[in-house]
Amino acid sequence: MKNLPTALVGQPVDAIDTPALVIDLDAMERNLTAMAAFAKQHGMRLRPHAKMHKSAVLAKLQIAAGAVGVCVQKTAEAEALAAGGVHNIYISNEVIDPAKLARVAALAQQLAALGGRLAIAVDSLQGVQRLAAAFSGMAPGLIDVLVEIDVGQGRCGLPPGAAAVPLVQAIARHAPLQFAGLQAYHGRAQHFRTLAERRAAIEQVGQDVRRTVAALQAAGHAVPLVTGAGSGTFLLEAASGVYGELQAGSYLFMDRDYASNEPDPAQPRFEHALFVKSQVISRCASHAVVDAGHKSHAIDSGLPAVHGLALSYGNGGDEHGILTGDALPELGDTVWLIPGHCDPTVNLHGVMIGVRGGLRQGVVEQIVRVDARGALT
Amino acid sequence: MKNLPTALVGQPVDAIDTPALVIDLDAMERNLTAMAAFAKQHGMRLRPHAKMHKSAVLAKLQIAAGAVGVCVQKTAEAEALAAGGVHNIYISNEVIDPAKLARVAALAQQLAALGGRLAIAVDSLQGVQRLAAAFSGMAPGLIDVLVEIDVGQGRCGLPPGAAAVPLVQAIARHAPLQFAGLQAYHGRAQHFRTLAERRAAIEQVGQDVRRTVAALQAAGHAVPLVTGAGSGTFLLEAASGVYGELQAGSYLFMDRDYASNEPDPAQPRFEHALFVKSQVISRCASHAVVDAGHKSHAIDSGLPAVHGLALSYGNGGDEHGILTGDALPELGDTVWLIPGHCDPTVNLHGVMIGVRGGLRQGVVEQIVRVDARGALT
Repeated sequence: MKNLPTALVGQPVDAIDTPALVIDLDAMERNLTAMAAFAKQHGMRLRPHAKMHKSAVLAKLQIAAGAVGVCVQKTAEAEALAAGGVHNIYISNEVIDPAKLARVAALAQQLAALGGRLAIAVDSLQGVQRLAAAFSGMAPGLIDVLVEIDVGQGRCGLPPGAAAVPLVQAIARHAPLQFAGLQAYHGRAQHFRTLAERRAAIEQVGQDVRRTVAALQAAGHAVPLVTGAGSGTFLLEAASGVYGELQAGSYLFMDRDYASNEPDPAQPRFEHALFVKSQVISRCASHAVVDAGHKSHAIDSGLPAVHGLALSYGNGGDEHGILTGDALPELGDTVWLIPGHCDPTVNLHGVMIGVRGGLRQGVVEQIVRVDARGALT
Repeated sequence: MKNLPTALVGQPVDAIDTPALVIDLDAMERNLTAMAAFAKQHGMRLRPHAKMHKSAVLAKLQIAAGAVGVCVQKTAEAEALAAGGVHNIYISNEVIDPAKLARVAALAQQLAALGGRLAIAVDSLQGVQRLAAAFSGMAPGLIDVLVEIDVGQGRCGLPPGAAAVPLVQAIARHAPLQFAGLQAYHGRAQHFRTLAERRAAIEQVGQDVRRTVAALQAAGHAVPLVTGAGSGTFLLEAASGVYGELQAGSYLFMDRDYASNEPDPAQPRFEHALFVKSQVISRCASHAVVDAGHKSHAIDSGLPAVHGLALSYGNGGDEHGILTGDALPELGDTVWLIPGHCDPTVNLHGVMIGVRGGLRQGVVEQIVRVDARGALT
């Protein structure tokens, strides 16, 4: 069975079968415009992380609004978006498997033939060597290679400073590989609740990046670009003076979790634009049960919020949510949920239903396919 | 892009691209046999919950081993498995939406025409009325209807006792609806860690069920069947004297979480049969990073365990896991993960790679499609 869309273009919101992932297109477009304006105003390149929406149509919308291209985390995501017409893609992650690297090389050639470009991150000499082996004999400068440094995320990346030098030297020894700069992403900092904590974290990031750039320059290597940042901190990276490119992606839909942050007054205001439409399927005196559980929305960043109602959502398992509160909805009622984390929520759905005119009176305008759903490899 | 299988039938385990969901077919078949033998020995009907594997091929394997049919939670899951040749299906959940109920009625007719049968749960008079409206004018006894009582799960279901009587009376007024018994599932009890806690919980469940059966009998309604139970407690339900049918599903793959339970010495031993194959893509002095994050495995019941190695898995986001421990694996090494909860893990994948001969030396024998992946409605 294909997971068919749960509504038809032209139908009213009421007709959308539940549970379904719904985009408020008006809110999304305001977010799109606000971020594009911010990047332009601050002279920053914008390369949104498409791991958030996984959709070629939305990636192309971001590029049309001024983005230079998109980031992804996996080779299969890059392949899926490229197939949908996205021609400038950065795999902001390490790839080690030779069979995957052969796919990376094939994709780089396909994109170059279309006037596009592929980039990838590395954080080990072995990674550079395997990448070079996969690109052996190919055109000079075919792929942009960014060296990842760990600026606080505690995941991939070299320690900041001189450790990057041998990698950049190794990249320089292979003609098809073009050293393009540093990948420096502190994802956790985005969820530090106070502005002061986020400021302190990104200040440290700035120091780490400067130290690495200095070490590379001392070894004779210019650093064309520093890329990173997310929707919770991008103002700080933009103001740091070291970043040239912002990777924020969540701004387009806005996770519930970001709403828990103390806001930065200088930051553009983004709206929640992604919702799970659900229905009450059981109701007793103490609670109501909706038909959307953690198979409809990811819970890694907490449970969803209930949109517009003073209700609390409790986890009822894969297929159920337990609503409690003073004014419980009735059997059959619609309840809109705001997911805690958009990226893995989108991954649970085959399509997103784009609605124009709001969640109450709106009409289905567009069915947005999740092209890179489940693109894990 | 379709999510293509990451290996070909006939290839060795080493060739499986990562991350990938892999079934140890030998272990799975031992689990299959052990549960079938248990049900037969105890004179219980077995109706495994197919929300676990979501696969028509595996459902048919369970039926061939003696199961009477399978359970699912959603109409779309029933449709997906029916399309794959599973003809006896119980939607052990409430359906309230008239458009969905029309699909339920259509499916009941299709299955009946194939000599099969559909069943569904209800927990409200409105639910019975809407179900009856959808089946209006159809053949007598076309669908089995089970009344759900809440025996401790705190989710759907009527309070145990006399509340079920008006529902059974209402069902009796509509010829196409056949009252088939009680749905009584205490899912949370399966994860109570000590045997004593689980015993006490299921003893209470038994009392609740008996009280409900007595109320129905006093009102002149026989209760043909009580159905429920899961892989963590089914021995206790089987021994209770009130259950006629077991819904355990996880036994086939065995979640990591069940391994945290104090074992019941009388229970058949089940083995972990579902794994995520992952690869180390980054390595530093303090940790190794694998390419499987919570987009590869569900984390609602905790993070995965690392199979066969004294390593700890930390959450590294959608696409990464952070391994720590004394003997860290090297860049490029394979690491096998045991998911905390199989059901939503399977939902993240398009296929499962069935391996014969073990995870070290085995060969890909079968690509098992996740037919009901994302079947939310």
